Amino acid sequence: MTTEPTQAAPVLPRTFIRELAQHVGQTVRLRGMILSRRDLGGIQFVTLRDAGGAVQCVGDQLNLDLPLPESSVEIIGTVRPHPKRGGEVEVQMQAMTVIAAAAEPTPVELPKLERVHADTLLNHRAVTVRGLKERAALRVQAELLAGFRETLSGMGFTEISTPKIVEAGAEGGAGLFTVDYFGEPAYLAQSPQLYKQMMVGAFERVFEVAPVFRGESHNTSRHLTEYLSLDAELGFIDSEEDVMDAETEVLRGMLARVQERCGPELALLGAELPQVPERIPRIPLLEARATVEREFGHLVGGKDLDPEGERLLGEWAGRELGSDFVFVTKFPQAARPFYTHPDGEMDGVPVTRGFDLLLRGLEITSGGQRIHDPEMLRRSIEAYGLNPESLRAYAEVFRYGMPPHGGFAIGAERLTALLLGLSNVRMARAFPRDRTRLQP
Amino acid sequence: MTTEPTQAAPVLPRTFIRELAQHVGQTVRLRGMILSRRDLGGIQFVTLRDAGGAVQCVGDQLNLDLPLPESSVEIIGTVRPHPKRGGEVEVQMQAMTVIAAAAEPTPVELPKLERVHADTLLNHRAVTVRGLKERAALRVQAELLAGFRETLSGMGFTEISTPKIVEAGAEGGAGLFTVDYFGEPAYLAQSPQLYKQMMVGAFERVFEVAPVFRGESHNTSRHLTEYLSLDAELGFIDSEEDVMDAETEVLRGMLARVQERCGPELALLGAELPQVPERIPRIPLLEARATVEREFGHLVGGKDLDPEGERLLGEWAGRELGSDFVFVTKFPQAARPFYTHPDGEMDGVPVTRGFDLLLRGLEITSGGQRIHDPEMLRRSIEAYGLNPESLRAYAEVFRYGMPPHGGFAIGAERLTALLLGLSNVRMARAFPRDRTRLQP
Repeated sequence: MTTEPTQAAPVLPRTFIRELAQHVGQTVRLRGMILSRRDLGGIQFVTLRDAGGAVQCVGDQLNLDLPLPESSVEIIGTVRPHPKRGGEVEVQMQAMTVIAAAAEPTPVELPKLERVHADTLLNHRAVTVRGLKERAALRVQAELLAGFRETLSGMGFTEISTPKIVEAGAEGGAGLFTVDYFGEPAYLAQSPQLYKQMMVGAFERVFEVAPVFRGESHNTSRHLTEYLSLDAELGFIDSEEDVMDAETEVLRGMLARVQERCGPELALLGAELPQVPERIPRIPLLEARATVEREFGHLVGGKDLDPEGERLLGEWAGRELGSDFVFVTKFPQAARPFYTHPDGEMDGVPVTRGFDLLLRGLEITSGGQRIHDPEMLRRSIEAYGLNPESLRAYAEVFRYGMPPHGGFAIGAERLTALLLGLSNVRMARAFPRDRTRLQP
Repeated sequence: MTTEPTQAAPVLPRTFIRELAQHVGQTVRLRGMILSRRDLGGIQFVTLRDAGGAVQCVGDQLNLDLPLPESSVEIIGTVRPHPKRGGEVEVQMQAMTVIAAAAEPTPVELPKLERVHADTLLNHRAVTVRGLKERAALRVQAELLAGFRETLSGMGFTEISTPKIVEAGAEGGAGLFTVDYFGEPAYLAQSPQLYKQMMVGAFERVFEVAPVFRGESHNTSRHLTEYLSLDAELGFIDSEEDVMDAETEVLRGMLARVQERCGPELALLGAELPQVPERIPRIPLLEARATVEREFGHLVGGKDLDPEGERLLGEWAGRELGSDFVFVTKFPQAARPFYTHPDGEMDGVPVTRGFDLLLRGLEITSGGQRIHDPEMLRRSIEAYGLNPESLRAYAEVFRYGMPPHGGFAIGAERLTALLLGLSNVRMARAFPRDRTRLQP
């Protein structure tokens, strides 16, 4: 004998707040949590928050002491146009039932989080993540991820899941977290780089959305020790140009999905998404350096672009090329890892088929063509002074045959923060981890 | 100035092998890797594998020594019906160009992996994962994941990403991996349990697809130390019945997607998917124990069902209830973690609103309603003898208000292995990790 359902179906089906505009004039049953409440001598105002929305509810004959904010309630009421805010609705309450009362007030008031210091927000993140803007950022990120997967699936990519506990790091020991693996040392993967390359041999086109771990000693607004990496890798390319084409298509798909599904969140956050041009401009690094020197008098040290150089190049690309995005290409070998495909010399400097993508002057991605020839790979491992033994399992695959291939990785939190204008990348993660933060 | 694209568009666009049936009689350009080759005195046979398919190619005037298997090639040829296998096609080769030759033969022959021992397959996984059946299992898994997300998104769930490096384990210290976090001990999350509950406060309905880590000392065909957990949690439930309803809908969506998109993979693996009934039968654990005793004379020790009891219950459910799936409900408190919602007593035994789901007699999921009342939670933490301090941040959230909620978790690899009849759960992971395996 099996048990039967014990609950009778409620007479009035539940309505979600996002659907209310379709129910003006009707009686609805809402469930949600009280974001805020006011009692003005008999007239009671409640802002109710549910899975995807928030709405003002008004009552004058409830005969009820309003429960604390964050209490879970059910409200029966009539939907009507909001008297002051055109296009919005409110709910005239007929009844409120408390489903689960809060035992004490939240440590900070959720409707007033803008006045609260970032550290306080993060210390109480388990509750402050309920704030409307706080959760809106994470909701946009969820749609970015869905857009990433959906677009790549449509392009014939297969999702993979590669190990996060690894025997050795992809690019040496700096910033690796050590794990005690049954008494032996192991490490947390800093990227799925080598594994996604291996999987090109199986599926030709692969992607992964998964956490990566970086023991960053920097504790800035741009660094997390654990973040979500959006990785893609594809085979049978002619050059890194094909990789940039693929990434452009993916970004377009991601932003289109957010635009389509996150209208209320973008409005709440006051964010305007950038346009992804049909073809994102591509400028070799050495030219990029010359450009910021010529246009802004900014001299870049090192082999790369410094943050100020990136900012200026972004400004120039917006003004002169009409694009928020710009690929910086042909990175010098000295600024790229050993697996990057070399590409001869420019101005006497050995360069590669590696690139970065800047959005509004900030790096959101690295990518490039990888070495697929086993001899070239052997020489590169040697030239970079790496230990061939620790890369044996990886290098071996190339001896058994690998097509020309390349790929890219996007940091989900950094992209989210940039698109939404968040000043701290931590707010693009539910429970961020940094140099000093392991809680909540 | 920006660089211009350097590649002219090829005259003949590339065709993927899965599309060949639409091109019979036409000349196509294929790219892929040579899975196998034979040269029968002038007539050359090649099986070509690409992103999603494999096809036989025949040539008699190629004037080419065939490169080693796993070499990447481009083939120009004409599509025609396969002379022996009705409904299939083959390609008459006009030209083959080697894009990247393999330097040496693979350590095992990829078309003959069925004869190879599992350990050898796993030792050379970076190459053996290219085998058609090997990759087919991972392809099916990718669609299961996509179906999980797609169905939940349609049900109003929001995707979340919670930390994998944590300060304390959700359920005590057993099987926790320790991480050196800047000199302090931290742990790898065994499940997103506590975090997904917290996120119910923000989004009401949430899901996560992410790795979890278990320091399992068992080294069986069913245990992995790192696996993909498909987690969902929803608020404003009336009881665990709502959670089982939601899981049923999710499973139906997952299997429908695989059925729709993985026809060739299922055929290759000889797998037939189970039907998900409109309502999966639900049987309380104590009744389940009585049933296997009555029907099979099997006496179960302990408080739970043992593996043999699960197998017999699955057999009984298939025969008597016509269902491959069965929910085992009302688990005793003694067999469930502290956060499980109690549900009075049955036959004098304190039971909970926790359940398991069996598929063909094997557990694929655990779930249940959780405690949301802060006082009940405090008493439970105490009764389980846990350290309230280590659960402080978690327990605190409940004082600020939480709706009644529950959820479930599905092990992706175990589900994949069961659906496809794989004898070892390791083959449902690209690069499995177990008690002794950290490579490749």
